Amino acid sequence: MAATLYVCATCKADQIVPEGSQPLGAQLLGALLAAECPAGVTIRPVECLSACSQGCSIALQGAGKWGYVYGRLGPADVPDILAGAAAYAESADGIVPWRQRPVIFRKQSLARIPPLES
Amino acid sequence: MAATLYVCATCKADQIVPEGSQPLGAQLLGALLAAECPAGVTIRPVECLSACSQGCSIALQGAGKWGYVYGRLGPADVPDILAGAAAYAESADGIVPWRQRPVIFRKQSLARIPPLES
Repeated sequence: MAATLYVCATCKADQIVPEGSQPLGAQLLGALLAAECPAGVTIRPVECLSACSQGCSIALQGAGKWGYVYGRLGPADVPDILAGAAAYAESADGIVPWRQRPVIFRKQSLARIPPLES
Repeated sequence: MAATLYVCATCKADQIVPEGSQPLGAQLLGALLAAECPAGVTIRPVECLSACSQGCSIALQGAGKWGYVYGRLGPADVPDILAGAAAYAESADGIVPWRQRPVIFRKQSLARIPPLES
């Protein structure tokens, strides 16, 4: 099983970005790429997940799986994001049992979208 | 080109549903099914789009297209939802030019998710 973890790398999370600094989304992406990536998970930057008021945001997607978008995240959430992405990658349909989801995934879901009909 | 319009039929939109009444999501689904469906658009009920605090919610999806989730909708929005779904169905990648999107799609996007990688 596999999953793609999209990270909105342009997200400013409603903050002013000081000159010479990266927006918070790019910092989150960098922290995710610097960590050990779970098996089956591919991390990809994306320009916007249209959830700007709830940034930083990420999305999880995989063939035959429900897609999920989560918000209000930052670099401190990297371990939980990767644990949640690993559980998602291992699932058949993207629906991870509730108690196996990190708390940030239980409480900070912005939306989900059904798997593409074949 | 084609698109699926998912409607969260269980959404109560944070309202108490009086006995004998349908939740607002079911009312929205009924109103959409009673209207003339644009070419290429298929309407499907779905149980939850995990956007309960922003209900009623809908999602648009199609092969090779970005998926979109919109919220804070109701039966009065049916003409705009169907016009937006028609424009989405006609698009190659799901990205409809900004000025061709109904105002509810410009202002009430909850999230979008990239097309599934092939």
